[in-house]
Amino acid sequence: MPDEFNRLRVVLVATRNPLDLGAAARAMSNFGVSHLRVVNAYELAFREARSAVGASALLANAEEYTSVADAVADCTLVVGTTAVGHRELQHPLRWLEYGARLIRKQLASGRVAMLFGSEKVGLSNEELSHCHWLMRIPTREEHSSMNLGQAVAVCLYELVRDVKAARSPEKPQRATAGEAERITAVLLEALQASGYVKPKAAAPTAEKVRRLVRRLNLQAADAALFWGAEVARAPCNSLG
Amino acid sequence: MPDEFNRLRVVLVATRNPLDLGAAARAMSNFGVSHLRVVNAYELAFREARSAVGASALLANAEEYTSVADAVADCTLVVGTTAVGHRELQHPLRWLEYGARLIRKQLASGRVAMLFGSEKVGLSNEELSHCHWLMRIPTREEHSSMNLGQAVAVCLYELVRDVKAARSPEKPQRATAGEAERITAVLLEALQASGYVKPKAAAPTAEKVRRLVRRLNLQAADAALFWGAEVARAPCNSLG
Repeated sequence: MPDEFNRLRVVLVATRNPLDLGAAARAMSNFGVSHLRVVNAYELAFREARSAVGASALLANAEEYTSVADAVADCTLVVGTTAVGHRELQHPLRWLEYGARLIRKQLASGRVAMLFGSEKVGLSNEELSHCHWLMRIPTREEHSSMNLGQAVAVCLYELVRDVKAARSPEKPQRATAGEAERITAVLLEALQASGYVKPKAAAPTAEKVRRLVRRLNLQAADAALFWGAEVARAPCNSLG
Repeated sequence: MPDEFNRLRVVLVATRNPLDLGAAARAMSNFGVSHLRVVNAYELAFREARSAVGASALLANAEEYTSVADAVADCTLVVGTTAVGHRELQHPLRWLEYGARLIRKQLASGRVAMLFGSEKVGLSNEELSHCHWLMRIPTREEHSSMNLGQAVAVCLYELVRDVKAARSPEKPQRATAGEAERITAVLLEALQASGYVKPKAAAPTAEKVRRLVRRLNLQAADAALFWGAEVARAPCNSLG
């Protein structure tokens, strides 16, 4: 994970359920974000939140605050998350994808606080007033409010996601044309042996089979599998 | 949400914890995906999973299966999710972002199953063998395994996320240059009244204040607020 994420502060405000705290911590650990701040958590025993699989150190190091102002004092950008709902917002509102881009930029030079409100009511107007702008996950209007742990996971995923990730991490090696042709021959031989290929239609059938094999988009490993079949069928001329 | 999502099937295999089932259902509801299939869930009472805030209808309509083969039989593309870990994968592996793009394409014409394994061990090799390819959320190598409900939320978010979402949903109106200049004048007047502006430095100070106001990137609503201050200060000439 990039170093900039050392400058990110996940700030949970008035969280009620220790399971949610634990889930948020686990998502942070999954995505390589380690600084958690907790404002007026309802459960003082949050550090034992059991669902934080593999994230107990992160929870043990969480910093406790009694006000949003204190929790964000050293941050140069403060972003609130919201499901919008009924309140008329007094802030610029950005979709998560665009907001995450702005946060990443800011992280290059300063600390950024990302605020999540309580499970029941989200962030209050007073809490929101500490934010520079707000961010919204693109959920349905009819059911916009997400579970806290899931909202944290989605926001951090969007932060971590990289344009580079749009490419496959592992390109399986494609079969060569020679391998494809060899498989074509094996298939055709089997079809001839089974009587499917009429002598007069030998050429068009061969072409049909050739096209079929190309459509399969075979990988090198698939080719080896077909060769194995060939070896098993006709050991005498398997190298022929 | 786009109609194509009617063709998506979220398939949870051997889920142990009803809270996870509920959380998965809630995320589906948040992102407008309504068809849930459950294979060998440990809890038969999963339909009452309490954490599925606002998603009880979705859970009540979930279809139960006893094998992955049956649960994906009517789908034209079957994608497994994995945190990779120790197993050597026999499948092409794609990052979520790229995989989601392929899934969206396929949803235009056919049903797609997205498989999630059990909380403890993920999908077994047998279960994986039903998949065309696998998808991985870009978590840290050292702690790659996500909570089930969070993994479902992140995958559905990535599916729903649109390139269009990269733009702001709401552009706050920027203050006009005239409004900015008026605010500059108010500020300058206050500074003069307080004795901060030395007569000899009046011009450079005015320029300094003007640059400062431009840097604030004021919105139209901010300008109104400053006018309010002006009105409050000098009601007699507030329209002057």
